[in-house]
Amino acid sequence: MNAYLKKWWGWGDPHKRFSLASRPSIFHFLQTQFDIKDKRFSPPHEKDIKLPESQLFQNEIKNLQALVGMENIFYDHATRLSHCLGKSTPDLIHARYKKREEAPDAVLFPKTESEVLNILRFCGEQKISVVPFGGGSSVLGGVSPSRYTHHHAVITLNLQKMNRVLNVDSSSHVACVQAGILGPQLEEELNRHHFTFGHFPQSFEFSTLGGWIATRGSGQNSSYYGNISDLVVSVKIATPQGIIQTRTTPDSSTGPSLRQLFIGSEGIFGVIVEAVIKIRPQTSSASYGTYLLPHFESGVTAIQKIKEENFNPLIVRLSDVSETQISFKMGSTQGGLKTILSYFVKLWMKFKKIKKEESCFLLVGFTGSKKDINHQKKRIRKMMKGSLSLGSKPGFTWHKSRFELPYLRDELLDYGILVDTFETATLWHNLIPLYNKIQKEAYRILSPKSLLLCHISHTYDTGASLYFTFLTPFKENPLTQWREIKKTVTQVILDNGGTLSHHHGIGKDHRDFLADEHGGEFLNILKNIKQTLDPSGIMNPGKLIQ
Amino acid sequence: MNAYLKKWWGWGDPHKRFSLASRPSIFHFLQTQFDIKDKRFSPPHEKDIKLPESQLFQNEIKNLQALVGMENIFYDHATRLSHCLGKSTPDLIHARYKKREEAPDAVLFPKTESEVLNILRFCGEQKISVVPFGGGSSVLGGVSPSRYTHHHAVITLNLQKMNRVLNVDSSSHVACVQAGILGPQLEEELNRHHFTFGHFPQSFEFSTLGGWIATRGSGQNSSYYGNISDLVVSVKIATPQGIIQTRTTPDSSTGPSLRQLFIGSEGIFGVIVEAVIKIRPQTSSASYGTYLLPHFESGVTAIQKIKEENFNPLIVRLSDVSETQISFKMGSTQGGLKTILSYFVKLWMKFKKIKKEESCFLLVGFTGSKKDINHQKKRIRKMMKGSLSLGSKPGFTWHKSRFELPYLRDELLDYGILVDTFETATLWHNLIPLYNKIQKEAYRILSPKSLLLCHISHTYDTGASLYFTFLTPFKENPLTQWREIKKTVTQVILDNGGTLSHHHGIGKDHRDFLADEHGGEFLNILKNIKQTLDPSGIMNPGKLIQ
Repeated sequence: MNAYLKKWWGWGDPHKRFSLASRPSIFHFLQTQFDIKDKRFSPPHEKDIKLPESQLFQNEIKNLQALVGMENIFYDHATRLSHCLGKSTPDLIHARYKKREEAPDAVLFPKTESEVLNILRFCGEQKISVVPFGGGSSVLGGVSPSRYTHHHAVITLNLQKMNRVLNVDSSSHVACVQAGILGPQLEEELNRHHFTFGHFPQSFEFSTLGGWIATRGSGQNSSYYGNISDLVVSVKIATPQGIIQTRTTPDSSTGPSLRQLFIGSEGIFGVIVEAVIKIRPQTSSASYGTYLLPHFESGVTAIQKIKEENFNPLIVRLSDVSETQISFKMGSTQGGLKTILSYFVKLWMKFKKIKKEESCFLLVGFTGSKKDINHQKKRIRKMMKGSLSLGSKPGFTWHKSRFELPYLRDELLDYGILVDTFETATLWHNLIPLYNKIQKEAYRILSPKSLLLCHISHTYDTGASLYFTFLTPFKENPLTQWREIKKTVTQVILDNGGTLSHHHGIGKDHRDFLADEHGGEFLNILKNIKQTLDPSGIMNPGKLIQ
Repeated sequence: MNAYLKKWWGWGDPHKRFSLASRPSIFHFLQTQFDIKDKRFSPPHEKDIKLPESQLFQNEIKNLQALVGMENIFYDHATRLSHCLGKSTPDLIHARYKKREEAPDAVLFPKTESEVLNILRFCGEQKISVVPFGGGSSVLGGVSPSRYTHHHAVITLNLQKMNRVLNVDSSSHVACVQAGILGPQLEEELNRHHFTFGHFPQSFEFSTLGGWIATRGSGQNSSYYGNISDLVVSVKIATPQGIIQTRTTPDSSTGPSLRQLFIGSEGIFGVIVEAVIKIRPQTSSASYGTYLLPHFESGVTAIQKIKEENFNPLIVRLSDVSETQISFKMGSTQGGLKTILSYFVKLWMKFKKIKKEESCFLLVGFTGSKKDINHQKKRIRKMMKGSLSLGSKPGFTWHKSRFELPYLRDELLDYGILVDTFETATLWHNLIPLYNKIQKEAYRILSPKSLLLCHISHTYDTGASLYFTFLTPFKENPLTQWREIKKTVTQVILDNGGTLSHHHGIGKDHRDFLADEHGGEFLNILKNIKQTLDPSGIMNPGKLIQ
């Protein structure tokens, strides 16, 4: 049974892809840049990949069947395979090389929190590792089916059957929701009550509330709605020691925050089963303004000005020169590109000293009533003197395709182009210096033919995030190559005042850098909390801590 | 040496008091209500109170002297006495009965974080308990000089010499500040750079940044600026295991929040020595609007409307009927009272169905440029239809006296009136039901002659705080009486969806209720973290956990 209708070897909908061949301008550019011609990989078949035999004993299977019902436990090849991999670049490379050493020995689909508790209790007794699984979209190995060395088996708990909105409290602007709900279903149900959660990560369509909480994520509109750590009022977590429910209160001063301990806990203490979340009344419309600024620095200054004026747009997103150039090529600034080609605009750009090849693209989003939006547009126009307005169309183009880029990653990998993203955040005073240092070191480790793109997408009063994408041709061993790049850029970030991750999380791939973020004592604290809540040590092996 | 120029037996400035006799209308009312005539207590003299002998050995004193310098360690009666008591009602009763069983065996004033570290190391070796002390304004016994039963001595670390603003980063809107700084000094230094922290708890003049962080506090303008948990970017804490510095970053997704573990840690893991805090540009002016609403429920509805309209005033504060009546008597609604006495206004109130004796007083604060404020006033006017505007004057009166009420508590206690406050927060849908339940149970345990006042002062999208003040005549044993009241009201709060504390903290007096807030596993987590950071167990005995 294929319980999981997603592309197991790549991103998202199995019937969807991002075809480079149908976009000649960008395809031609990449062909020239990377000297590529044909695809190196085609979609693997399930049967191409051999998985290790299931290690569960017959009596264990019987017991687990009794706990969740025969129809909610699977150990067929397809289901195990679809829970083998997350969506990190190494995962996708593994899939293309048809290699997978780890697989869950069974995949369980619990329907209630007491089923989850019973499974955890049983696995604790039998020494079976447990991996919680929401949408499986981790880009850092957060759902890898590892097992503890002294365990004989590992099971994956897929939460997709715990996906109900239990209560919408329209007076308090909160909703109580089960953790396995996917983004679109959550929004659909809240929209029916004229509310929104406002959390739209790039993985939105294929990630769950529980996953967002477990990884301490951010959505594309987080500058307006807040990060998940702001949006969760309380969390219910099923641990091997039982259910823990943090207090549902607007705020409190009752010691260290237990809620903020579970947000970001990445499944190592237990399974997030439910949360009370803040919801916001849906606004009637949204619009965009897009601008071309003379260079990255002037873009950063413009964002700081927006922040200082206490103006809080739906989204503020600034691309650096490289990303802006690629946007032109990809036609994602369509309306804008036409503008740029006009004779009068060229004159105007000359007058404003904006050179196309040095310019940076800024997207600003607005929300509210039509009247509110007009007011916001008027305010922003005043702040954007010295830039070239490209109108709202490129904004709507971005909005339409905002969840699409992960499909492109699959296509690029198929052509043998190594592609991945890395991200950080830092204070405003350090933003350009950190950006420059990362650029310098990244270009040093990447081959000369590589592309390195960056944008700022999450802004705060105190600073902002930096989000990089790199593209470089496969070397002989792309996994070793990836590991070297990852190590280099992560170390530059940590050595220069950036955070290890702004919103991707830790998982396995950032784990060994975590001590550099907060110091080694932090790991001891995490280990001791784990010891308290998961004393027999079964929860999500190898994530966050070793 | 009296190193601590504050009233050791009461609130604040020793040269300041709140004289009831000079306010005939309120004095007369209280005399009638409580059948009181003369003061029962007069300020105690230092020498009236016998303290236990200092338990430090001579060689320990010598060692401690070497660590901080002769001039920074005190064991004289006056200094020890001034660090014996916090500002809880039981503390103040103890002072009036001239009883104090606990005293620090020495008070140290470290100047640097390495001095703090050395003291902690030494105390760990010698088995001496350590109590961190900021402004000493805890209302829950948070600075009581308790010692662990297996320790022979306890010292108090007064942080007042670590009070520098180390750096103001006006580009990133953050400042790095030592934890021992008092409110007024912090504001003064930030104001010089045209910034404000915006954190104004009632204790502002006599509390420190470190204390605010340790207790997870809120200021009176928190609805606008945020609570301390929002305002702290990173924390540096000196633990017996060494310095831990959380990452200074606008936000991150690097596992559970270490920062949110130290905020609210109440000194049990270590001493907060430094923090990077968010600062905001100072606004040019502030103003108020005050209104009389027909009843408490209509006031709550009005606040919800303000929140729903995405309007974020500097402060929103709604008094219930009892508190409104007392405000009239105290003249703190002066301008408003005059208004009410006018003939036309009486007619107008009749028309609007506002009965003075059922009415509730609402204060709304505005900040920004004069133009901004006018715009805000216009917006609020529209929302306040059905209320009687009392103008801005009562708002300015409130602002002027907003740090004064703790002086009144001392005066009331001197007359033998037991007075204390308790507070909670809950979701909007539960606010009126919880208010009613607390009222009912509190009146049941208080004598019939008592007064119970309440206001809402901290508002969120999801709910608000409830802040109660009770006044009741002393019974034979006011401490037993206080304990019974405390137990009753706290249990009602916990049983009916309120949080144990919205901003006062836990200390000793809320400690035994903490398991009811989040469940017993929370205590185990705290104990295990303490075990990691304070393995020999010296830090702030008896606070938060037993």
